[in-house]
Amino acid sequence: MSAASFAALPDPPYWAVIFSNQRRGHGEPADDAGYAAAAQHMVDLAADQPGFLGIESTRDGSGFGITVSYWQSPEALLAWRRQVDHAATRELGRERWYEHYELRVARVERAYGWNQA
Amino acid sequence: MSAASFAALPDPPYWAVIFSNQRRGHGEPADDAGYAAAAQHMVDLAADQPGFLGIESTRDGSGFGITVSYWQSPEALLAWRRQVDHAATRELGRERWYEHYELRVARVERAYGWNQA
Repeated sequence: MSAASFAALPDPPYWAVIFSNQRRGHGEPADDAGYAAAAQHMVDLAADQPGFLGIESTRDGSGFGITVSYWQSPEALLAWRRQVDHAATRELGRERWYEHYELRVARVERAYGWNQA
Repeated sequence: MSAASFAALPDPPYWAVIFSNQRRGHGEPADDAGYAAAAQHMVDLAADQPGFLGIESTRDGSGFGITVSYWQSPEALLAWRRQVDHAATRELGRERWYEHYELRVARVERAYGWNQA
């Protein structure tokens, strides 16, 4: 996913989906193009969901990535997961893009930030 | 931090600290060496704390990183944060390493994983 920046979030509580993942065959250009498009599509889908608050995402050169999406309520998060879990998307992810992933659903209780300037 | 891999975690509930951060002056070799050493020191400190469960960390080429550390209880997490918050470490982080960071403390309620194999 292309959003390499901070999500502007309201005060807690809100919900987070922590998606840690290892890309498969990272660095193959054809595969990467397909993945980038699909990842952007997922971000667009999420942003259109009611209760979506923001997303932060990064990946290192070895293909290990962490994406955290933030949601207003468990209901908002569940509605999105239902959409994402549609068999087609999940199977593509498993057969083509990921070697391994872990997904953790958490309730954010406290938040702090610091910004130079 | 160097741990570009998955944390092996028990079943929820447990706690997560989601640390999103933008490195400052990323790519300057002298600074990077100091940062790598300090980041490894932080991981070692965390791993020595009672109640530490694991850590996942990644950073892209622009210097945007996400590190998630996992803890058995709010008490374990607070004890670690008290250590990390020692003025010396925090000031170094602010003056030398980070342009911006956000820290979110969350209670993990559910977890799912998938592994090729």
